[in-house]
Amino acid sequence: MHNNRIIIRKEKYDNSELRLNETLFSNANGYIGVRGTLEEGVPSGYSTMRGMYLGGVYEIIPMKQAESLCNLVEKKQTMLNVADTQTIELYVCGERFEMGQGELLSNERILDMNGGFTARKIRWRSPGGRTVGIYIKRMASLDRPQIFVQEYTVKAEDFDGEMAFDSWHVADVRNYSDPDDPRLAAESPSYLTVLRAEVKGDTSLCVSKTGVSGVVIASAVSHVFPGSDSNGISAGYTVNEDKRCVCRIEAELTQGNEFKVIKYSAFSDSIRNEDPASDVITVLDEAKKNTEALYKKQRDILSAFWKRAGMEIKGDDDLDMAMTFNMYQLFCSAPKVQGSSIAAKGLTGEGYEGHYFWDAEMYTLPFFILTDKKLARNILSFRYETLDKARENAALLGHKKGALYPWRTITGEECSGYFPSGSAAYHINGAVSYAVVSYYLATGDSDYIVDEGEEILIETARLWLDTGNYNRDGKFVINEVTGPDEYTCMVDNNFYTNCAAAYGMKWAVRLMHMFERREKIAELKERLNITEDELAEMIRASENMYLPYDERFGISPQDDSFLEKPVWDIAATPKSDFPLLLHYHPLHLYRYQVCKQADTVLAHFLFPGNADRETMEKSFRYYEKITTHDSSLSTCVFSMQASRLGLHDEAVRYFGDSAKLDLLNLHGNSTDGVHTANMGGAYMALVYGFGGIRIDEKGLSIDPFLPDKLAGYSFRFGYHGCLLCLGVDREEMKVELTEGDIIEFSHLGVLHRLRGGEQWTAKL
Amino acid sequence: MHNNRIIIRKEKYDNSELRLNETLFSNANGYIGVRGTLEEGVPSGYSTMRGMYLGGVYEIIPMKQAESLCNLVEKKQTMLNVADTQTIELYVCGERFEMGQGELLSNERILDMNGGFTARKIRWRSPGGRTVGIYIKRMASLDRPQIFVQEYTVKAEDFDGEMAFDSWHVADVRNYSDPDDPRLAAESPSYLTVLRAEVKGDTSLCVSKTGVSGVVIASAVSHVFPGSDSNGISAGYTVNEDKRCVCRIEAELTQGNEFKVIKYSAFSDSIRNEDPASDVITVLDEAKKNTEALYKKQRDILSAFWKRAGMEIKGDDDLDMAMTFNMYQLFCSAPKVQGSSIAAKGLTGEGYEGHYFWDAEMYTLPFFILTDKKLARNILSFRYETLDKARENAALLGHKKGALYPWRTITGEECSGYFPSGSAAYHINGAVSYAVVSYYLATGDSDYIVDEGEEILIETARLWLDTGNYNRDGKFVINEVTGPDEYTCMVDNNFYTNCAAAYGMKWAVRLMHMFERREKIAELKERLNITEDELAEMIRASENMYLPYDERFGISPQDDSFLEKPVWDIAATPKSDFPLLLHYHPLHLYRYQVCKQADTVLAHFLFPGNADRETMEKSFRYYEKITTHDSSLSTCVFSMQASRLGLHDEAVRYFGDSAKLDLLNLHGNSTDGVHTANMGGAYMALVYGFGGIRIDEKGLSIDPFLPDKLAGYSFRFGYHGCLLCLGVDREEMKVELTEGDIIEFSHLGVLHRLRGGEQWTAKL
Repeated sequence: MHNNRIIIRKEKYDNSELRLNETLFSNANGYIGVRGTLEEGVPSGYSTMRGMYLGGVYEIIPMKQAESLCNLVEKKQTMLNVADTQTIELYVCGERFEMGQGELLSNERILDMNGGFTARKIRWRSPGGRTVGIYIKRMASLDRPQIFVQEYTVKAEDFDGEMAFDSWHVADVRNYSDPDDPRLAAESPSYLTVLRAEVKGDTSLCVSKTGVSGVVIASAVSHVFPGSDSNGISAGYTVNEDKRCVCRIEAELTQGNEFKVIKYSAFSDSIRNEDPASDVITVLDEAKKNTEALYKKQRDILSAFWKRAGMEIKGDDDLDMAMTFNMYQLFCSAPKVQGSSIAAKGLTGEGYEGHYFWDAEMYTLPFFILTDKKLARNILSFRYETLDKARENAALLGHKKGALYPWRTITGEECSGYFPSGSAAYHINGAVSYAVVSYYLATGDSDYIVDEGEEILIETARLWLDTGNYNRDGKFVINEVTGPDEYTCMVDNNFYTNCAAAYGMKWAVRLMHMFERREKIAELKERLNITEDELAEMIRASENMYLPYDERFGISPQDDSFLEKPVWDIAATPKSDFPLLLHYHPLHLYRYQVCKQADTVLAHFLFPGNADRETMEKSFRYYEKITTHDSSLSTCVFSMQASRLGLHDEAVRYFGDSAKLDLLNLHGNSTDGVHTANMGGAYMALVYGFGGIRIDEKGLSIDPFLPDKLAGYSFRFGYHGCLLCLGVDREEMKVELTEGDIIEFSHLGVLHRLRGGEQWTAKL
Repeated sequence: MHNNRIIIRKEKYDNSELRLNETLFSNANGYIGVRGTLEEGVPSGYSTMRGMYLGGVYEIIPMKQAESLCNLVEKKQTMLNVADTQTIELYVCGERFEMGQGELLSNERILDMNGGFTARKIRWRSPGGRTVGIYIKRMASLDRPQIFVQEYTVKAEDFDGEMAFDSWHVADVRNYSDPDDPRLAAESPSYLTVLRAEVKGDTSLCVSKTGVSGVVIASAVSHVFPGSDSNGISAGYTVNEDKRCVCRIEAELTQGNEFKVIKYSAFSDSIRNEDPASDVITVLDEAKKNTEALYKKQRDILSAFWKRAGMEIKGDDDLDMAMTFNMYQLFCSAPKVQGSSIAAKGLTGEGYEGHYFWDAEMYTLPFFILTDKKLARNILSFRYETLDKARENAALLGHKKGALYPWRTITGEECSGYFPSGSAAYHINGAVSYAVVSYYLATGDSDYIVDEGEEILIETARLWLDTGNYNRDGKFVINEVTGPDEYTCMVDNNFYTNCAAAYGMKWAVRLMHMFERREKIAELKERLNITEDELAEMIRASENMYLPYDERFGISPQDDSFLEKPVWDIAATPKSDFPLLLHYHPLHLYRYQVCKQADTVLAHFLFPGNADRETMEKSFRYYEKITTHDSSLSTCVFSMQASRLGLHDEAVRYFGDSAKLDLLNLHGNSTDGVHTANMGGAYMALVYGFGGIRIDEKGLSIDPFLPDKLAGYSFRFGYHGCLLCLGVDREEMKVELTEGDIIEFSHLGVLHRLRGGEQWTAKL
């Protein structure tokens, strides 16, 4: 495995790249997320989304329906921009450092994915002719998730003189808004009331509170000056009338020497801590003691991560770096404690208001299942903790039994304002139950099943039973749901949804029977009043699930009426009309065969037993022509299914689109945050697709191929407590059991057994 | 025909009847609508909806979508409560008249449908023991639609003493709101700014203006004292700080004598008049000159109306009165000038925000076509005047050609906030085109067709062509539309919609060819670039329209997927759960076979050529079982179709439910205004249903029956410039040509000819 996990970008200082770089060079650790905003600020008019976020911290805001209908959702949660502690203004001999003033001699952004930090490296000549070296390093600590560190070094290259920092700590911030983009919030009222803004000693403390959710957020900031004797340094805090804290730091610079300040920010909130204001001071004081230890720990954690998850693509450095970036971002986005999940944009931006979608389970979870079982478990536990809310949600939708997970949420309550492509997307239940089963199959963690998983499986299965009915032919049909493709809504018998429902019901019963002797399962049956009749009904519905098939095209139709609609002419649609959802009324889109994303193709990949190979290939070809990939969840699926079908060229092409989506901003909106689902999807396209890793009830199978364009690839992954490495090059494939005693896997249908430290090779 | 068109109700003075009586005893003339609110006001906490409305006068208010999607409507028009001129407080010897104080010796409400006024007749004993007779008469002038008159008479039965009126004129009013009912506005901000509130001589003038639509509304009020010498009478105006005008009138009462004041209110608006403030003074001064002439003219207009529309039901006085009430209300609701239409609640309340729906064309227009051609033309002209807005609406929905009328509107722009049961109800186009054809068939008014009607027919037909497509079997299908029954939404091939589309396209082409030699039609073809190819496409689509048929049940399915859903158990649903739309999430409703209203049954009635008799009867029986009639547009349709199918018992039962809906408040919400659509529907149930009147391309046919429960009925109706009367009793049916030279009609398939003054009878 390689070690070159450092991205360096030369940044133009104009409006074209800033906001994208804010995303790409953000810092996150699963609790804190800080956009890579310039410390000194940007001129007004520049496109910037300045923000610091805390995972799972939210305000509840009204979401009035234009027309009131029974039980529609009329409020939602939104992720908060909690404070601004990253702003540091620099003055050199009275000249304020601004990249747009004077002359920018060099300007680089650095993301070090081994060290777990970002940096800015600048040489700047002031309007007054002074040459200044600037190095700013930032880190959201993976070891101490409440800590964010900035290290700001200034070097006087060709002058002596005084310099000063104005280092801010502001809790009175607002969320970003864009009324023209439905994917972002439309307005930005002030969600926070600043309760306290005060200075004690060398620490400023801000405490603010949301108006409705009542969440209290505390932040504390302090500065240290390593490597300086304190001569000539003065630091004084002020709290402005408007409750903005600023620390004025003054020092003397001499030619050729540098001055460094380390700014620590700590955060705490009342969801996780009873007294966030005290907590944050304690945490801050502890962190300040040893910065170098923090850096080392950061490096150790990442080293361990790369050891478990290390991946290399040979023959395409860009692809290799893009995939490394994706995996790093996923790791930094994952909740390090139970109770929250991975948002659509991780912690890198406010897009989709910090909501968790099916993206978390269906797209990002496989990555964690294979690389970090504990993080996977954290993500899964969010659904268990919010199961009661899913039950309430089902009742609101008119169900007598079962649980329906919300389409988008932070706390577990539905936040979707337009239910036809929100609450109607019942396949969220399919994603959650699939995740439970996948985690079990890959880890063998039966405790999880009996403790949490089986209850989720039963309640989601109950919902399917309550939603569907038997048609005249005795087939179980599920009407009026929305599948993954939101360019049609509220359809009957969405192929994907029906597959997921059948799978979920089957496994709900299977695992219940498998562990029926476990005490907790007996308790569960008792508590939820689960009868054998009910389990038999689940099996009956699962086995008789209606899965539409179209004789004429030989494909699986997306839903009952899909193929009756005219085909949208994608080729004749102006490029500027994409994504279609921003340019066409939804009703118009619903009337055509046009897909925002993979839907049936995903069903074929996840539930391959439901169609034969020919049907799957014809379907792939059919849907490929009518899919716009307007969703970032699409190309990765097309890639992995192409791999499985042996369509290697397509697999490679789609993989590239998916893998590079954020790093190259292929969708144009990575400016608002990364696409975590696609990052996870790109990982699946590599591991499940090229690598041919498959984990199902029969166990692990490994059937890789090497795309022509690549020289080779390798990756590590976990399976039932062991660590494996798959390496593929032009000559051969190699499987190695690097941790663990013994493992079985099949290749080309033949079972192989590998002991710890052994490796197995085969010609490709 | 009878002359007893007077409704007298003894009113309890408690909270149970007041608001219903405000509706039933409202005054309207097609421009002004005044709720029958008590002049003196009611105690706080009483359920009252105090309001004065002007037809077509509106404000534009924001209607933000909970989730922003492309081209969704984000503002709407709302009818305004424009002013309060009806408030008159009475003081007798210093005691204020309040019905809840003292003793109510008698209390009646009167609606005189010959005289065209309402009245309150009260004997009241004050807490101080004075007995007072009160008679208050109110009229919205049909002759002068800008004038509303109140006549207030006070009689001192057993005392001498002074009395006083405080008569108010207030322009600073708000709309009614009820956050708990989706059918009413949820909040009530102030829409009006009072620009002027002033007194000149004996007249007060208020001018107010809406904030967004910029409509200026002027009202003027003046009082006269007929039959009094001015001795002892003083009248003085005050304008309060808050711009409320009040006229204090004082007089001496002597035992056994009475004092009367007539209060005139005049209204004008800037939509219809350039200078409403001047206009309203002119109109007021003119009206004041001769009150008796106003009353006489009112009586003459109604006399002429009843001569054309007179109806009598023998053997059920309640039914007779209910039908008379319905017809009277319809007549009073109709716009007397072109440019507005009939709102769902007429001018009797704020329910549905004064919006015009398909109700106007499909339910109320037939009544006007048969009783008042000019009013029918006014209603039709609204759609012609807003055709450009319908074109714009079609473009917003993604159509390249054609016009799509808005589901609900005042100005012609869509006001529906939830498009799946709003804009997606494309059958509004079917209602408009059906109306155009119906008007032509019943009147023979070819000028209307060439001037306006054909352009509507072509543009709505174009929309169908652009919406539908041919399926694999070569049938023209229309997907993703919502039919009349809103308990399913966005379905494929709604039977009703497809029938209406086929009919509209057929007639668009037929009338174009029929009048192709008329110069205006040639101009139209040129202007709209209508080619023969396009017309041929319309015919092709019409003739190949897909109309679903279900072999198993032998019925017309409501849409492609309807019969695949489970049947809702209406019998097992608690009574308190109706209407279902207030108690179940729409998605839940969509998943069942349950109908809010007639849908396929209406299609069978309007377009009888599309199914054979057996299919229609089976369909009737089938849908009857799954229809909740939660919509007021339902029972009338079931009644008329039952009549046509010879299901006389059902016809009578449904007719009663429909005819008495408002007078008996059967749906519980006549408190918010009358149901104009149902009133028109009840009329159709009588005339088309019992009377067996049918007007189609073959001409007029008359095939009545007499329900067992009735002794007979008769009604007058117009046809091709003639006036006919149909009378039916136990013995025979009688058709009389009371105006016009000659008419042909068929009975039992046999053609008959009748000359002016002749009558024709047949055994029943």
